[in-house]
Amino acid sequence: MGAPFITFLSDYGLADDFVGVCHGVIARECPEARVIDLTHDVPRGDIRAGGVIMRRALPYVPHGVHLAVVDPGVGSNRRAVAVALADRRVLVGPDNGLLSLSFEVGGGVVEAVDIGRSPFALAPVSATFHGRDIFAPVAARLAGGAALAEAGEPCDPAGLVALELPRPRVEDGVLIAHAVYLDRFGNVQLEARGEELDARPGQSVAVSVRGESWPAVVVRTFADVPVGELLVYEDSSGRLALAVNQGSAVARLGIAVGDALRLGPA
Amino acid sequence: MGAPFITFLSDYGLADDFVGVCHGVIARECPEARVIDLTHDVPRGDIRAGGVIMRRALPYVPHGVHLAVVDPGVGSNRRAVAVALADRRVLVGPDNGLLSLSFEVGGGVVEAVDIGRSPFALAPVSATFHGRDIFAPVAARLAGGAALAEAGEPCDPAGLVALELPRPRVEDGVLIAHAVYLDRFGNVQLEARGEELDARPGQSVAVSVRGESWPAVVVRTFADVPVGELLVYEDSSGRLALAVNQGSAVARLGIAVGDALRLGPA
Amino acid sequence: MGAPFITFLSDYGLADDFVGVCHGVIARECPEARVIDLTHDVPRGDIRAGGVIMRRALPYVPHGVHLAVVDPGVGSNRRAVAVALADRRVLVGPDNGLLSLSFEVGGGVVEAVDIGRSPFALAPVSATFHGRDIFAPVAARLAGGAALAEAGEPCDPAGLVALELPRPRVEDGVLIAHAVYLDRFGNVQLEARGEELDARPGQSVAVSVRGESWPAVVVRTFADVPVGELLVYEDSSGRLALAVNQGSAVARLGIAVGDALRLGPA
Repeated sequence: MGAPFITFLSDYGLADDFVGVCHGVIARECPEARVIDLTHDVPRGDIRAGGVIMRRALPYVPHGVHLAVVDPGVGSNRRAVAVALADRRVLVGPDNGLLSLSFEVGGGVVEAVDIGRSPFALAPVSATFHGRDIFAPVAARLAGGAALAEAGEPCDPAGLVALELPRPRVEDGVLIAHAVYLDRFGNVQLEARGEELDARPGQSVAVSVRGESWPAVVVRTFADVPVGELLVYEDSSGRLALAVNQGSAVARLGIAVGDALRLGPA
Repeated sequence: MGAPFITFLSDYGLADDFVGVCHGVIARECPEARVIDLTHDVPRGDIRAGGVIMRRALPYVPHGVHLAVVDPGVGSNRRAVAVALADRRVLVGPDNGLLSLSFEVGGGVVEAVDIGRSPFALAPVSATFHGRDIFAPVAARLAGGAALAEAGEPCDPAGLVALELPRPRVEDGVLIAHAVYLDRFGNVQLEARGEELDARPGQSVAVSVRGESWPAVVVRTFADVPVGELLVYEDSSGRLALAVNQGSAVARLGIAVGDALRLGPA
Repeated sequence: MGAPFITFLSDYGLADDFVGVCHGVIARECPEARVIDLTHDVPRGDIRAGGVIMRRALPYVPHGVHLAVVDPGVGSNRRAVAVALADRRVLVGPDNGLLSLSFEVGGGVVEAVDIGRSPFALAPVSATFHGRDIFAPVAARLAGGAALAEAGEPCDPAGLVALELPRPRVEDGVLIAHAVYLDRFGNVQLEARGEELDARPGQSVAVSVRGESWPAVVVRTFADVPVGELLVYEDSSGRLALAVNQGSAVARLGIAVGDALRLGPA
């Protein structure tokens, strides 16, 4: 049996000590735990971006406790929860939809507890930093072997807040899919699986958004088109994506998260 | 006995390899040590911001060696020190005031050594990167169990450079307190404890700075006021703070570190 | 025998989950490995900056597996390699020159394998994220004790892509050297060793670039000149460098990477 793993995702940023302090709390509560930071630069309060990142990262990280804090409602009456999935992963975070995109990655929720008054929380619990006072210590104690039922009051999995992402659809041979994530390279991830675009590698397509249209080529990777050209590809999480080779599709197309894109015959 | 912990705070940033190299040196000198990064984005050379962060983070991290490097005078005649506190924490860094705000967190200084010519330093010591050549290896060796007296020459704790923060005061029923830390969310931490403001939860107050005044409400947390409204609250380190719910108090009020704010009857 | 170390450098940035996911893959493939992040903020696609950082960091980190990913040609026909050096360090990354500056740090290459179809790679291998699918798992398995020959097909070390940096030269008593790295403090690292400048400490020199000239003083460290003044010094990796005390030489001189600077008599 090796050391337990905790993954940690948040919108705390690294400019302040929020993340470091949560690491400190985890180290005090479960010194043997090893923490993998997924990212702490989720755009402030962007529950969807946090959820999309967690969903795609989970298959590549060790099973363990998966802590996520994007929590614009901290201190309000939103619940704090810990959730066990069928594959024995445990997710810890606010019950605002952030965790929900990952439920199916682990086979669905089998048990959930409300940790708002967890005996594992630090005392006193501040009104503004539940990452430090509730989520981190609960995650640490669960990583250390505590049972989920000890962490809080049981609650009905069916009542957990679920995030709904816009589904892709096809109209007259045109795929309509939404931008759900923009990465630091300017690549655009769409909420559609690669195979939902009916196009052969090498085929040209037209990409339309906000009333404008651009030609693009369906390829495997960036280097398959000349530098500066727009490409459509299946990204590394199996989702349809847009990029500009050594450039930024976000900047080229002026895309914002939530935009509906139309991909059709050139 | 678990692995020893080292916490690490600096203004090195993460864009270069300064932090990574210090981690490397620690791993060579004390492979079993575990390092918790508090933050490395202290504003360049801002000794006060570094000190404020360390002071508030220390109660939440494991006891161990606490390395801090914000060192605009590197290579000059400022001293490099390692300091033992009454609670057995050890602080390592430049003797420029950075460490001093944390002395009382650990019950005061019981022993101090000048590590400028430490036998634990790398050889040769560069003139510009004492984090790598002096502070990190000394911290690592102390974490590994070396006695403080082995790390350098004894020096008088009373002679350590102390940082003075402006004290809050009350004039005619108005609390005057200074902004000492601005976080990435735009929240403003004042150098005053929450209880120093004589106001009930829900009460309106007037906040004045730089000749302008804003209405605010005293509440527990962000979500206690509508989105976009200014609030006054006791933050998670017990200090008085200003925020805008889902916005930035720094931007709203145009505040800079060091500004004196007046909080009085609305 | 302690835990194996892996160092990790990339241009992935920390805004997304690329780095966290690679950490996750390493933890799955070799749970006992400890990962030291050198930096992940290498400018996008800047093979030279990545190579310069790795070359100077390597002497300060534990021997182990050294993973580096700056890979603008991902998915193209550039090779992916793992390389053993004479001092038993192992480097893993794309064969685009990134690793090559570090070869001599470890005494030269003694063995190289092409890991493009490594049995240690994840299946399937995506076309755009070889850090996750090839480089991280190969690095992890090598850290875990696998032999280099198991990681891929042998290839000729003489055929590895080598990066050439412009050599310094002296003309009429003037040293001509190139800027190869600009750090976050605005310090300029030149591709010349400190001793290549024929000047005494305290001596004034003229620094010329892009047709303009500035006076500077040769000193040991920043604080040896008044705040705001330009200095020439041997930096902490033994290389000639320019800085402004508590300011930015990059901004002052308008320097870009690759610029040739002339340092001569004042």
